[in-house]
Formats: sequence, structure tokens, C-alpha cells
Amino acid sequence: MADNPNCDLKSLSPLQLFQRVTEQGEKVRALKAGKAPKDEIDAAVRMLLSLKLSYKATTGQDYQAGLPPKDLVLMNNGTNKEEDVDFVDPWTVQTSNAKGVDYDKLIVRFGSSKIDTDLINRIERATGQKPHRFLRRGIFFSHRDMDQILDAYENKKSFYLYTGRGPSSQAMHVGHLIQFIFAKWLQEVFDVPLIIQLTDDEKYLWKDLTTEKAYEYARENAKDIIACGFDINKTFIFSDLDYLGTSTGFYKNIVKVQKHVTFNQVKGIFGFTDSDCIGKISFPAIQAAPSFSSSFPQIFNNKENIQCLIPCAIDQDPYFRMTRDVAPRIGQPKPALLHSVFFPALQGAQTKMSASDPNSSIFLTDTPKQIKTKINKHAFSGGRDTIEEHRKYGGNCDVDVSFMYLTFFLEDDDRLAQLKQAYTSGELLTGELKKVLIETLQPLIAAHQERRKQVTDEILKQFMTPRKLAFEF
Amino acid sequence: MADNPNCDLKSLSPLQLFQRVTEQGEKVRALKAGKAPKDEIDAAVRMLLSLKLSYKATTGQDYQAGLPPKDLVLMNNGTNKEEDVDFVDPWTVQTSNAKGVDYDKLIVRFGSSKIDTDLINRIERATGQKPHRFLRRGIFFSHRDMDQILDAYENKKSFYLYTGRGPSSQAMHVGHLIQFIFAKWLQEVFDVPLIIQLTDDEKYLWKDLTTEKAYEYARENAKDIIACGFDINKTFIFSDLDYLGTSTGFYKNIVKVQKHVTFNQVKGIFGFTDSDCIGKISFPAIQAAPSFSSSFPQIFNNKENIQCLIPCAIDQDPYFRMTRDVAPRIGQPKPALLHSVFFPALQGAQTKMSASDPNSSIFLTDTPKQIKTKINKHAFSGGRDTIEEHRKYGGNCDVDVSFMYLTFFLEDDDRLAQLKQAYTSGELLTGELKKVLIETLQPLIAAHQERRKQVTDEILKQFMTPRKLAFEF
Repeated sequence: MADNPNCDLKSLSPLQLFQRVTEQGEKVRALKAGKAPKDEIDAAVRMLLSLKLSYKATTGQDYQAGLPPKDLVLMNNGTNKEEDVDFVDPWTVQTSNAKGVDYDKLIVRFGSSKIDTDLINRIERATGQKPHRFLRRGIFFSHRDMDQILDAYENKKSFYLYTGRGPSSQAMHVGHLIQFIFAKWLQEVFDVPLIIQLTDDEKYLWKDLTTEKAYEYARENAKDIIACGFDINKTFIFSDLDYLGTSTGFYKNIVKVQKHVTFNQVKGIFGFTDSDCIGKISFPAIQAAPSFSSSFPQIFNNKENIQCLIPCAIDQDPYFRMTRDVAPRIGQPKPALLHSVFFPALQGAQTKMSASDPNSSIFLTDTPKQIKTKINKHAFSGGRDTIEEHRKYGGNCDVDVSFMYLTFFLEDDDRLAQLKQAYTSGELLTGELKKVLIETLQPLIAAHQERRKQVTDEILKQFMTPRKLAFEF
Repeated sequence: MADNPNCDLKSLSPLQLFQRVTEQGEKVRALKAGKAPKDEIDAAVRMLLSLKLSYKATTGQDYQAGLPPKDLVLMNNGTNKEEDVDFVDPWTVQTSNAKGVDYDKLIVRFGSSKIDTDLINRIERATGQKPHRFLRRGIFFSHRDMDQILDAYENKKSFYLYTGRGPSSQAMHVGHLIQFIFAKWLQEVFDVPLIIQLTDDEKYLWKDLTTEKAYEYARENAKDIIACGFDINKTFIFSDLDYLGTSTGFYKNIVKVQKHVTFNQVKGIFGFTDSDCIGKISFPAIQAAPSFSSSFPQIFNNKENIQCLIPCAIDQDPYFRMTRDVAPRIGQPKPALLHSVFFPALQGAQTKMSASDPNSSIFLTDTPKQIKTKINKHAFSGGRDTIEEHRKYGGNCDVDVSFMYLTFFLEDDDRLAQLKQAYTSGELLTGELKKVLIETLQPLIAAHQERRKQVTDEILKQFMTPRKLAFEF
């Protein structure tokens, strides 16, 4: 197939053609960047032009980088309501827009609230700290009841943080760090305890894994999480498979949630069917229960009804909509939430990243060389196909994955603004932008790897041991 | 209503009329037994005759004690297949036959095996003990793989016993003791450990109870169970709400079962619907998991794959059919089973007893006087309506609840046979048979109450503490 891309262009759908043009554009850029022989570059450019012609013949539109043939795709699906374009649940995130999911529409659909400037200013006033770049840049963009958390906090009533991860493999990528980087910041500026759930039981239920393997992944992932720099005296990390058998409070809350949620409800929220196993059907209660402090009697010294704040990616919201619905009926406070956008795959923002595809992101185990190669080879570019076009028309930061990654990881706001201006104006080339990202990520990941080496089994054991945290409520 | 039973006889269904005749017959007997004034007795007898006439007019049949108008009932239900008469699942047992459920048909329907003379003889040979009266009298009537248990036992390979109870109230009645009396006998003659599960989580899910109340009932019931005389060194009793949070093995087995059973399956087996809560839907896995010794690492010293034998009432079989289906798929041995018949309510064998109706059985807290009054007042009689008829035609042991209770509790086979012969021939009157039952149960229950007083909180705690049992596998 790759050797003869013209063989069946007419049988391709508009979206498939769009992808072929995009890939070929990347190939041209890679050849140029790699200083390939001129005839090889010329052949690739001719192929690119031929593909663009086929695209126009099929769709009636000019190819535009980062703008897939949306209307045509929708017509193929028998619908063209824009609301239906994005699909988001805890297992699937789909959008046909290269800019990624439309988050404003998601706020309306999920019924959450936008994190606006007022709220960010209020967080700054309450904590006396400059808001984290994830807040400044709209990476955490939506919330539920964060104003109530702040009301209480301003009245000296504290809360605890709860977040988590499904340990589906040993490998974590930089996108997985977003929740933990932000949780660490929240822990520090509010001075609150943090609970981290590793849903190894979920991964056992959903994947082709043994319980032993899922638990091993949980432990390995916990080491990477600890390497983010959490305070051992204020952080408890647990695996479900392990902790459920050591807590007097966790199962009681699980069964309380399970009594107040019907199959009809989880069918509606999560799309379960009659053919799903009863483990999946009852699992949402296991992700819900850590929202209640009584699930952790050892951690909170038997103190119940402590308010919970959950930083998580927006795809996890269905679990907590359910939790918030049940909470008052079992005499518990509703957890508040802070929602983040999805971290894009190197190949583009249309999908969430996959830990099973090593080229879909930068992994925490990648060497400096691997980081460089992956970004140069796979990071979807919003640049133009030729240097001449790029200089003339400029690049598109809205779809450029290197620029997106920099918004996550480059702390300096001014520098980020400069890069955006220079790339959009055509002054900065794709290769140069990629270089900035490489130079940003290489030291970050090297430092992470250095810290992870320090996480011994003994330290892991301490983090995962249920014990009173250094905190009085 | 009770004052004017003739008011609307024509609007009654055949079954309702049958019940009115039966009640009136009991009233006549009670008045005679209580030496009521003659005119009161005469009035009651006239009413009885009038009711019998109405019954004949409606059904075209003579009233026969213990034989409800079955065909008519079935026609009303739009079916007359006899197979449909008995309905048995873990929450409902229904039969329209005063003799109770047709157990031979249940064996065919459930696909289990009859406990026949050969098997009973084999148990006698293997243990060197006279078979328990529950075996001799067909009270434990059905099994799964008991022959394999004996094969292994004869080859010095042992097993453990698992049974349980749903603690729906503080009050236990004599019927609840059947499993425990038999489990104690099995424990003694085979010299094996016993695990007793108290499904307080199930009762929380199904009833209008708090978790605290369900757990309290579990502890109270455990004291009554301990009072049956179990060996503290070979018996572990646990509440789900409590033990799930203290065992490293239990939840792992639960989630393994939950992965291998779909909603479709539990819908088929237990009749769950989409409106049921996800707690009910996933609960069957919690009753399944104690069938695997790895659920009790402390008890069995981490030894896995020990064979399990479950003595239980036949209505619990659906849980274990499911368990046996899953077992090989999660690398565990299938549990073997011994099934008992249902213990009849005082009012007759049509239904299983209810712990919530104090008059439906003899409770373990009843005084000698209460025992006497309940049996005299409520025990459904297979005797005739008048002494003259009884002497002439004899009583019907198949429907007489006092006789049924004696088959459960009177140890002496010869005496039981004599009573049957005398009652059937009309020689023994209902009041005399009831007297035998009263004199059998009063000392049994007094002795139970005496033993229960000895069960301190300290002893309870020991039984409920996970610990290595005095047993080597």
C-alpha cells in the first residue's frame, strides 16, 4: 500500500484521502528536514500535488491542513448536526476536528461550568499564588462547585484531593502526568491531602490482563506518580485490588453507591449493554467511593464528610456526575470537580493518546534521542508544505501538536506568546518549533527519570500504606 | 371482614374460598381444643359447613383439607402445565400444593442429582457414622458432585464446608437452624473446617436497612449460629461488610467472578431487570467467592484450590450453578453441593417461612409457653374437622405441619414411624400430635437459649477473626 499510494485513490473516502494528503505532506517535510537527495524530495512533492488534486476532485474543496472534510464525514454518517461530532466517554474520545474536541460545547452538554477569569482570580486570591499555567491557558477549563470549595476554604474549612489512573500498561506518557502535575500544585497551594486511586480492577475487567499483571502495572505506575514529587506525609496512593481488602470503610461506601444506582442509569451514562459483565456494570461505584472521606478511615482518622475536590480529564466526568447524583441520598457531600482538556496524540488532536502505541506520545521512559526522533517524525505539524508557502502564509498553531505540547509544558508565558506569533507569521519554521519542544521535554523527562530512580520499593510501600496523613480537619 | 365471612363469598376466587374453609376448620378445632362454650362451637361448625357448600358451588369439587383447587388456579393463570406450579429462586418459593414443592421435579429442572440410598450408604461407609436424620428422611435430598467429594475423601484428600445466612432480622427461627445442624454434623463426621458467610451486604441491598443495622443483625445471628455448638478451632464466621475490608483474597475472587458473568446471565438466572440496582446485579459474585479457598488466605494458610462442599437449601442453588459455571474459567475447582428441602411455615408448606412474621414459625427466642400457644393455634393440621371424622378417616401426615416439624427434629425413627401410623389411622388426634411436637421443641429451644447465653462478645470476636484454622490440607 505505502509503495503505491495511487492504486485506488478513487475508492477512498474523503477522510481517508485527507489523511493520505496529510501523511504525504509530513513525508515531504521529513525528507527536507533530513536533507534527502533532491530527486527523492521532488518525487514526494509530485505525489503530494497529485493527492491534493484527487482530494479536490472528490470533495470539491481545496485541501487545508488541519481541517478534515467534516461535512462530508457527517453526511456519510447520516447526520450533520455539529453537536454529534465529538464523542466523549471514559473509554472513547472521538472528534473529526484537528483542533480537538469543542470544549465549550462539552460544558453545555455535560452541564458543568466554565473556569472563567473571575474564578481563576479568586483561586489566586485564596491561595496567594500565581495560578498554574494549566489554569492560565485553559487546560483545566471546566468545573463543578469549585466556588463552593473556595467559599468553604475562605472560611477555614478544608478539603481533600482525589484523582486516579487506570494502570493499563507499565508505560506512562507525558499526557498521563497532567492530572498529577496539577494535583501536586493544588496540594501545595491549598495545603491539602491527596488520594490517588489506581483502578487495577477496572483494567482487569476491561482488558486481557490477569489480576497479578494489573496490580504490577499499578505499582509501576505509582512509582512514576510518586516521581512527580508528592509529599509522602500528605499523599495516599492505593490499588483497588489491594486496598479493598484492607479498608473497613471503602466497601461500605461502594455497596451504598451500588444500592442507589440502577442498571438503567449506568446503561444511560456509560453505554453498558446486557452482554457486559457484571463487574463492568458495578465498577462505577468503585470509582465513585473515594469521593467520600469515610472510604479512608485510617487516612482521615475516622473523620467523615470531608469535602472532596477531583481534578481529572473531562472524559471521567460521567463517573462523577453519577457520584454527585448519589451523594445526598447516602448522606455524603457531593465531590467538586476540575476538568482538563485531553492531551493530544503526537499524530493530532483528533484522538486521545494510547499507551499501547509507542509512537503516539512521548513516554516517561524515552531517551533524549527517542524524544527528538518521535517529535521530528510524528508530531503533526500545522506548518505549510514548503518553506516558501510557510514563509508566505505562516503556520497554524491551533492544529500544530508541537505548539500544543508547549502550551502544556513550557512555563514561560512570554516565550510561548512569542513562539505563537513567530510561527503564525511564518517567521518560525516547523523544524524550529519542534526544536523548542524537544529542548523543553528532554530535561523535564530526564529529571523525572532521575527522581523515579529514587523511588525505592520501601518508599512505594510507605505511599501505599493506609495511615493517618499529616493533616487536621 | 372476619366478623362477617359470608358477605362476599361469591366474589372470592376458588383459592381464596379454599383458604377461608381451611381457616374456619382451624377455628373450629381451636375452639374445641380450648373447650369453648358449646353454642360458640356450634356456630363455628355451621359457618364451616356453609363455607364448604360455597366452595363446592364455585369449584364443582368437594373441599379436601390440604388440597387447594389447583387446576382452577392454573387456569386463572392462563396455564395448566404442572411444571409451572412451583416457583423457586433465592427470594421466592411458591407452590400451590399443601405438601410443598415437588422436589423430584426440581431435581430434573435444576439438573442436580438425587441423594439416593447408595449415596447415603457410601457416606456411612466413608465416615463410619450413622447417617444424619436429615439424610435418612430425605430432608437433604439433592446434590451436585457429592460422589467426587467422597472419591477424594476416600483417597485422603479433604475439603471444607461453606454455608451461610442472610441476616434480615435479629430473630432466627428453627427452620434457619437446618443448614447449621447439618453443617455441624458434616464438620464432625468428616472432620473438616467450616466457613459461614453472613450476607449483611445482600440484606442492605434488598431491604430497607442501614449497613449498621444489617451488620448488627449479622452479629446477633452469628451468636445463634455459634450456639449450635461449632468447634471454634475449625469454624470461621464472617460478615461481608466486615470481611471484605480485611481479606487480601476475597475481593480478587469476587472481581474474577464478576468478569466472567454477564448481565444477560444474571437476568436469566435470578430474574434481575434493568431497574434493579447495580449492587443486586453484582451481588451473586459475592455469594460465589467463598466457594474458593483462596478467598480465605488466613484461614487456609494461603493454600488454594481446596475443594468446597456447600450444604444449603435448594433455593440457593442458582448462585452455585453460576459459580460452578465460572469456576473452571478462573482456574478454580467447582464447589459440590448438598441441597435441603424448605422448612415449612406453621401455616403450611405452600410457602417458605418469613422471619418477619412472628407467627409463621417457632423462634429461637420463644418461651415454652409461646411455643405451645403457636403450635396449638397456628400449626396447620392434616386432621379432620371433627373428632368423629378423624377417628373414622384418619389424618394426613403429608400436609400436617406438626408432623413435618417432627421429621426435622425428632431423632427417634421408630417413634416417628409410630406417630405417623397412629395419626394416619385416626388413632392419634391433632392435639396429641401437637403435644409431641411441643414436648420435642421446648427442651431443644431451652437448651439452645442456654448455650446462646454462653456466647459472649469475646467468643463472637474469636469466631469472626480471620485466623488459621486447626487443620492441615
